[in-house]
Amino acid sequence: MTLPMEVPVPGLPARVRIHEVGARDGLQNEKAVVPVEVKAEFVGRLAGAGLSTIEATSFVHPKWVPQLADAEELYPRVAALPVALPVLVPNERGLDRALALGARRVAVFASATESFARANLNRTVDESLAMFAPVVARAKAAGVHVRGYLSMCFGDPWEGAVPVARVVRVCRALKELGCDEISLGDTIGVATPGHVTALLDALTAGGVPVDTLAVHFHDTYGQALANTLAALQRGVSTVDASAGGLGGCPYAKSATGNLATEDLVWMLRGLGIDTGVDLDRLVATSVWMAAHLGRPSPSRTVRALSHDDSPQEQ
Amino acid sequence: MTLPMEVPVPGLPARVRIHEVGARDGLQNEKAVVPVEVKAEFVGRLAGAGLSTIEATSFVHPKWVPQLADAEELYPRVAALPVALPVLVPNERGLDRALALGARRVAVFASATESFARANLNRTVDESLAMFAPVVARAKAAGVHVRGYLSMCFGDPWEGAVPVARVVRVCRALKELGCDEISLGDTIGVATPGHVTALLDALTAGGVPVDTLAVHFHDTYGQALANTLAALQRGVSTVDASAGGLGGCPYAKSATGNLATEDLVWMLRGLGIDTGVDLDRLVATSVWMAAHLGRPSPSRTVRALSHDDSPQEQ
Repeated sequence: MTLPMEVPVPGLPARVRIHEVGARDGLQNEKAVVPVEVKAEFVGRLAGAGLSTIEATSFVHPKWVPQLADAEELYPRVAALPVALPVLVPNERGLDRALALGARRVAVFASATESFARANLNRTVDESLAMFAPVVARAKAAGVHVRGYLSMCFGDPWEGAVPVARVVRVCRALKELGCDEISLGDTIGVATPGHVTALLDALTAGGVPVDTLAVHFHDTYGQALANTLAALQRGVSTVDASAGGLGGCPYAKSATGNLATEDLVWMLRGLGIDTGVDLDRLVATSVWMAAHLGRPSPSRTVRALSHDDSPQEQ
Repeated sequence: MTLPMEVPVPGLPARVRIHEVGARDGLQNEKAVVPVEVKAEFVGRLAGAGLSTIEATSFVHPKWVPQLADAEELYPRVAALPVALPVLVPNERGLDRALALGARRVAVFASATESFARANLNRTVDESLAMFAPVVARAKAAGVHVRGYLSMCFGDPWEGAVPVARVVRVCRALKELGCDEISLGDTIGVATPGHVTALLDALTAGGVPVDTLAVHFHDTYGQALANTLAALQRGVSTVDASAGGLGGCPYAKSATGNLATEDLVWMLRGLGIDTGVDLDRLVATSVWMAAHLGRPSPSRTVRALSHDDSPQEQ
């Protein structure tokens, strides 16, 4: 019995690249430090499940993200995997560390709102862009792929709804710096599908090609997969997700995790969209990681597929 | 700060009627019997939160659904509420009981698959339709609105994927019996948006008007809201949901609940679609019910809105 039934929808992308963020975004707010051996096995298992882009770690200062202070130890352990392994770099110092280890993909992280730029980077939006300029320029000069994360693209816990025009402005600035790809983050999970469509339309009209965009939804209000569907319908073909739905936002206590990779793969499989992911192996990986973290995965698909799901007679 | 931001999408329904099933579908598989006073207060609170159609109970034989054995006690306690109060009736005996209490809306429940018809009704699909024929005819003669539930419209735990043509056949048969509305059930939660679109297109092509259809999604694999979006895009404007995401399917141990009403209301609010629901009062109702049942609501929106969600400085 193979489910879901495959029913392709004309006009959606034929293939979606999943940008797996479980090992970085998923773990970065875990209080108990996960041993580097476990992280390396996690990344290895994700690769074994067919994920082709796995964000491995972050070269931020250990003071800010203690969980990822082992980046120098972790990266060499996973570098030989036959997958893309982007890493976060906040500044030139982080870029130096990443380049020294041979990283071929880096990501900077900007904010669409002044409040979050101040909270996360202690800078204005423009000051943070100025900080990224040499990072992006040097990475590009080294032939390294650069992703720009843009946080708070829909709502902000301090400012409320974020005007689409402001997101377009920062997005264009990141493109002008040289970012190859921009990931539109719904950091607090408040987006709904019409908002997603409106932002993508505005970005396209503003000269940002949709094939350089990714979407990054959090499932705080249960909207992540519906928002993803809206993005696919506008031609987005790179989707960020976190194995097992790991992750959260430290600025909003109740924030649940990222879109769960398994729930995304289930939908894409039903839509006949190729991802290359072996769902059973991915679920097994999330179950293994959940056991390590000591709490069940919030992913519905992980919960359903990791139980005995045979028919029960009453 | 009002979130989500309202961004209407052209072509979607201007108004959606939520058919609230928490008091019936949501509770029917609870092992510990919920006191009738609590059920009555639940229905009253749901009405107070602005839900206009609240499925109250079921007039099945108490042997099959012990939780709802108090239907005769419950219905009179809520009958004066200024809302529609449909009730399930499995057969003529159930209809007699409902009519005796003054019910103005009833629902029969059919299956799209032979396996589930056998398991749930101990009949073939055609035998069950024959059983419903006099129920629907007598209800219509009494001026009572009749909903037909159609289970297993997408997948079946015994048979796997369910062919669209079979669903169309049973749906047409229910219409021919006189059902005013048909609720398409994804009883085990395996549907994906393309499958939803394909079924709705086939039903429309088969002469079943979309304004007589409702959708009833379970969130077993996290797909319920994305599937709802696909249904809205095809013009469906009646959506079944369960306050707090209560409910499950007794035939699949891991099945999680129905689509949570709160997650649906969040999306519809963002889409600028009127529902008449006061989200804060609804969340408070689900928190109250969860306390009674002794476990947290699976609704992401309930969890987010029932916590302190003010910004947290690091």
